[in-house]
Amino acid sequence: MTEKKRLEVCLTPALLPLFTLDGKIAVIIDIFRATTSICYGIENGAEAIIPVAEVAECIAYRGQHPEYLVAAERNGEVVAGFDFGNSPFSYSHEKVNGKTIVLTTTNGTHALHQSIKAKRIVIGSFLNLTALCTWLNTQPEDVLLVCAGWKNNFNLEDTLFAGAVTDQLIHHGYVTDDAAIAAFDLYQLAKGDLDGYLKKTSHSERLKQLGIEADIAFCLNVDTTTAIPVLDGERLVRLI
Amino acid sequence: MTEKKRLEVCLTPALLPLFTLDGKIAVIIDIFRATTSICYGIENGAEAIIPVAEVAECIAYRGQHPEYLVAAERNGEVVAGFDFGNSPFSYSHEKVNGKTIVLTTTNGTHALHQSIKAKRIVIGSFLNLTALCTWLNTQPEDVLLVCAGWKNNFNLEDTLFAGAVTDQLIHHGYVTDDAAIAAFDLYQLAKGDLDGYLKKTSHSERLKQLGIEADIAFCLNVDTTTAIPVLDGERLVRLI
Repeated sequence: MTEKKRLEVCLTPALLPLFTLDGKIAVIIDIFRATTSICYGIENGAEAIIPVAEVAECIAYRGQHPEYLVAAERNGEVVAGFDFGNSPFSYSHEKVNGKTIVLTTTNGTHALHQSIKAKRIVIGSFLNLTALCTWLNTQPEDVLLVCAGWKNNFNLEDTLFAGAVTDQLIHHGYVTDDAAIAAFDLYQLAKGDLDGYLKKTSHSERLKQLGIEADIAFCLNVDTTTAIPVLDGERLVRLI
Repeated sequence: MTEKKRLEVCLTPALLPLFTLDGKIAVIIDIFRATTSICYGIENGAEAIIPVAEVAECIAYRGQHPEYLVAAERNGEVVAGFDFGNSPFSYSHEKVNGKTIVLTTTNGTHALHQSIKAKRIVIGSFLNLTALCTWLNTQPEDVLLVCAGWKNNFNLEDTLFAGAVTDQLIHHGYVTDDAAIAAFDLYQLAKGDLDGYLKKTSHSERLKQLGIEADIAFCLNVDTTTAIPVLDGERLVRLI
């Protein structure tokens, strides 16, 4: 009899010190919009995506690698001199195929860096939900779902995605923690109309004020891609 | 037109640094079993309850005040030389009326000490749910519900109680954060059978192994008391 695998949900990076990362697969989740853009870009043939926290780091990369695309956005506008912002629509095949992109993202990068001791770090979004879960199921490791949240605090969209992953794994005999149970139950309430459910959240409201409703709708598309981005050094590349 | 009050939920004490406590009412929540025992004890006439983190602190209090009752439990057993453990059944009228009790509790005390900058700190449990909400509604201050959690991590029982409070306040025009929305929705799923819902959690399982099912059932009784314990210096006393 094999021992059951553990499936845990870390609701914000501020709680990561409470979890063991050693030997686990960490799934980084930042639905609006970093991990969605990363999944879409890798699916569309990007050679690598390098997530960084600060615009200045983006600029430093470009100094060393003029061929890299750089993506930076502040207050919903592309930073002057950059190729594009954080909208997933910027990560289309014609724009990113064969390219390396440096992407600024605060919450997503923070979650990823805080998870660095994990055995493997992969990227999740609603776009690659089933592909990700199918792969996780074939792996022997325990799984830790790391919600990037908003400035270290809880948010609903990342938690709902953690619930969607739990929904696919729970029938394969994983042992779950309380946060996974909560995420699973919230996902059952929301899955029929993710966009409608999230309309009541503060974050959705804030993003709407930035005029990116189309981005939000895109980020809630389920199973439109199959690539799984994995961290290799500082670069996210295609695992499968 | 008056400005709307804020109702926020801090899912674990580890997230408290992300919240402003200044000028707010903090409600401390540690359903299994500290805040339940405190509500029951104050309802039953205890003059004061002093929550401390360590058994050694309990002993120090008794050294100075031989008349105090001291309550300490480790691994489900009353510590030798103490009057009773942490079971709410120990806080009956005949045992606590007119007395001061020093209670050891790790999660509850931690949450309370971390919330010390709040304008007012009160104690919530399912026992005093409606009394607490009715009082909160009459106050002009914003409300922060502080879930004690389990060793700084998320737990379902404290979150459900935060959802129960949100359920009573949300129709009185409070502005809520994402955690309050999540807690509210989870409470809707659970309220018909709190005990049944919590049976699937890890914490409930752990408590059951300690042989305290009767305590758990007691902690899920709703609206059996009306006292609201409030922090006055280091002592919890009856507010109303």
